[in-house]
Amino acid sequence: MTAQAVQERIYNFSPGPATMPLSVLQQVQDELLCLPGSGCSIMEMSHRDKTFLDILHAAENGIRSLLNVSDDYAVLFLQGGARLQFSMIAANLLRGQSGKAQYLVTGSWGKSAVAEAVKEGPTEVIWDGKADNYNNIPSDADYSVDPSAAYLYYCSNETIQGVQFQTEPTAPQGVPLICDSSSDFLCRPVDIEKYGILYACAQKNAGPAGVTVTVIRKDLLERSQAELPGYLNYKNHADNDSEWNTPPTFAIYVLGKVLNWLRDDIGGLQAMQDVNREKAALLYDLIDQYPEFYIGHAAPGCRSLMNVTYKLPSDELQSAFLTQAAKHNLGSLKGHRSVGGIRASIYNAMPREGVAALADFMKDFVAQNG
Amino acid sequence: MTAQAVQERIYNFSPGPATMPLSVLQQVQDELLCLPGSGCSIMEMSHRDKTFLDILHAAENGIRSLLNVSDDYAVLFLQGGARLQFSMIAANLLRGQSGKAQYLVTGSWGKSAVAEAVKEGPTEVIWDGKADNYNNIPSDADYSVDPSAAYLYYCSNETIQGVQFQTEPTAPQGVPLICDSSSDFLCRPVDIEKYGILYACAQKNAGPAGVTVTVIRKDLLERSQAELPGYLNYKNHADNDSEWNTPPTFAIYVLGKVLNWLRDDIGGLQAMQDVNREKAALLYDLIDQYPEFYIGHAAPGCRSLMNVTYKLPSDELQSAFLTQAAKHNLGSLKGHRSVGGIRASIYNAMPREGVAALADFMKDFVAQNG
Repeated sequence: MTAQAVQERIYNFSPGPATMPLSVLQQVQDELLCLPGSGCSIMEMSHRDKTFLDILHAAENGIRSLLNVSDDYAVLFLQGGARLQFSMIAANLLRGQSGKAQYLVTGSWGKSAVAEAVKEGPTEVIWDGKADNYNNIPSDADYSVDPSAAYLYYCSNETIQGVQFQTEPTAPQGVPLICDSSSDFLCRPVDIEKYGILYACAQKNAGPAGVTVTVIRKDLLERSQAELPGYLNYKNHADNDSEWNTPPTFAIYVLGKVLNWLRDDIGGLQAMQDVNREKAALLYDLIDQYPEFYIGHAAPGCRSLMNVTYKLPSDELQSAFLTQAAKHNLGSLKGHRSVGGIRASIYNAMPREGVAALADFMKDFVAQNG
Repeated sequence: MTAQAVQERIYNFSPGPATMPLSVLQQVQDELLCLPGSGCSIMEMSHRDKTFLDILHAAENGIRSLLNVSDDYAVLFLQGGARLQFSMIAANLLRGQSGKAQYLVTGSWGKSAVAEAVKEGPTEVIWDGKADNYNNIPSDADYSVDPSAAYLYYCSNETIQGVQFQTEPTAPQGVPLICDSSSDFLCRPVDIEKYGILYACAQKNAGPAGVTVTVIRKDLLERSQAELPGYLNYKNHADNDSEWNTPPTFAIYVLGKVLNWLRDDIGGLQAMQDVNREKAALLYDLIDQYPEFYIGHAAPGCRSLMNVTYKLPSDELQSAFLTQAAKHNLGSLKGHRSVGGIRASIYNAMPREGVAALADFMKDFVAQNG
C-alpha cells in the first residue's frame, strides 16, 4: 500500500500548497492513529496537553535555531495566511502612529498587501514595478524611505511573477523592515536582526496550509492597541505563546517535522541555499540557452530561486508543453492566470531529481518543437 | 504498526481538539502519502486543483445535507477559530447598523464573544448566568429582545460549564439569530431556517483544529462593509467560495470525512442525537444516583449532551479520581481551570464503549470512596 502510494507520486511543481519532504509525510503517516506515548492522534490532542506544548515549543525553537532568532523577537503561529497578515501588520503597526507606511510593490502579493494597508492608515507605494510588468526588483538607490515612516514593507519573493530580492532593502534607522517571505521562507540564510517582522504562510516552503509563522521584534508589540479585534492583536498571541486561542495543532506539528528535516537531512539554511541554487540553475540555464523558446519573465538579476516563470512562443506550444509534461509525471506547471505561461515552483522540498527531470523534458521538448 | 497504534489508543475525553472517529483517521492515514489518482498528498495539492475543489464542494454539500441548508445560505470554511468569529460577527453585522447587538451569556464563551463585540458597536447583555455560576440556561420568558436589535447572539453549548440550550431562543421577526455551536455542532438536528448565522470551530465535533464552519444567511452579507480587513469580510469569502485566500485544505479534507462518517456510519443527525442521549444518560444517571459524591454543575434541565461537568467532595478525591481514571485508559478528564472538578467531553466521535467504561469506573470509584 505504502510502496504503491510512493510510486504513484509525481513531481509536483505546485506554487502552494506545495510538495513536501517524503520522509516528513511518512513520519506523519506512521504516527497518525496514535502519537507514541500519548494515547491519541495529534489531531485529537488538547492544545494545552503537555505533549502538544512540547511540539509547539520545539517548532518555535526550530525556527529560532534555523534563523538565529534572539529573545528580542517573538515567534508566533497564526491562522488566516498572508492575507490576514496584510491587515494585521497595518492594524498593529500603523494605527496610532504619526508616520505613514511605505511599500515596495514588486508583484501581485505586494499589491494585495497595499490594498489592506490603506484601510488602516496613510500608506504610500514608494516603488512599483508595474510599468515593466513586475519583472524586476529595485535596488536601494531606486527609492527613498521616509526616516519617520511607520515601517517599510516588501515581499521578498513574488510567487506569481518569479522575482526575488537577492538581499533585503535597507531601512533607515528606526524604521522597522517588514517582509512577506511566504514563498521563500527558509530557502536561504537571513539576517533576522535587520527585520521588524518576517512572516510566511507555511504552505509553500514549510508545511501544510493553515499556519503562518510571524517573527516579530518584541518592542513593536507595544504598538498594538487594545481596541483591535482580539485575534488581530499580535500582543495577544505573543503574551499567550500562540495559545490565545486554539492554534492549528496538526499544521504546527507537521511544520515542526519540516524544520527537523531542514536541520538534519539538509544541514541548515546555507546548505539549503546551495541546493536551491543548483536546482534553479538547471532551469535558468535552459532559459538562457533557448531565450527565444523559453522566454523568461524575470530580469536575470532578480530571478527567483523558488518560482521559475517563462513563456513559450505560442499558446499552442504552451498547451502541448503542459500536456506532455503531465505524461512525464511533471505536474502543476501552469502559470498563474494573471501572468500565463509556465511556472515551475521548486521549493525546498522539491528534490534535485525532480528539477533534473523537468530540465530533461524541456531539452527534449525544445529539440522537437524549437 | 497500525494494530499496535490502535491498541495504544485510550478513551480521550478532551474538550477539544477532541477524539475523532477511528475509521476517519484510518482513511486519512491510508491516503496520506498520495491521494488516489492525484499524484500527491492532500497536503501538497493546490487549493485550485480540481481534486481539492471537489473535496471542498463535497464538504459543503455534506454540511448542507446533514443540516438541511438551503441556497439562501452560504457555507464558509474559515480560519481563526471561534475567537475570530466573535470579532467577525460584530464587525460585519453590527458596524453601520442602527440597532444594538444583544447577547445571552450562559458561560465563558458567551462572555468572550461580548468582549469582542463591544469593540465594534453598541452591545447589550440581556441575560447573564453569572449569579448562578453559569449553571443554567434562560427560557424566552427570562429576557426581552429589542425588535430593532442588530442581532441576537447565544452560545448553544458552553463547553467549560457544560450547559446547553435544549432548543434555540426565539428572536423577533427581523432580528437575525446568531449561534456559536462550536461544541455541539452536528450533535442533533437543527432547524437552520431559524438562524442568521450558525458557526462552529471544527476541533470539537467535526474535525481537526484550524477550520471553522460558518453557515450564514446570504442577505446578511449585504451588511459587510468594504473597509473591513479583507479576511474579516464574510462577503469576500462567500463571493469566492471560501477561496478568497488559501483555505486550510487538510483540515477541510478531514472534516469532509467526518461528515461522511456521520451520514454513512451513524445515519445522520437524528440517529446521532439518539446515541448522544444514551451516552450522556450513562453519566448523568450516576450524578443523580450519587448526588453528594458526583456533584453535577449544570442544572438538570440544561445539561449538556457534550460536556458532562461535576465535582467530587474534595480536591483529594478529585486528584485520586483523575489518577486512577488515567490508569484505566480514561484520559483528559480534568475540568477547565476556571471551573475545576471533572469534565467528560463526550462528543459525537466518543464511542458508547468509552462512556460505558467511564461509567463503570465511576461506579467502582464511588463504591471504594463514597
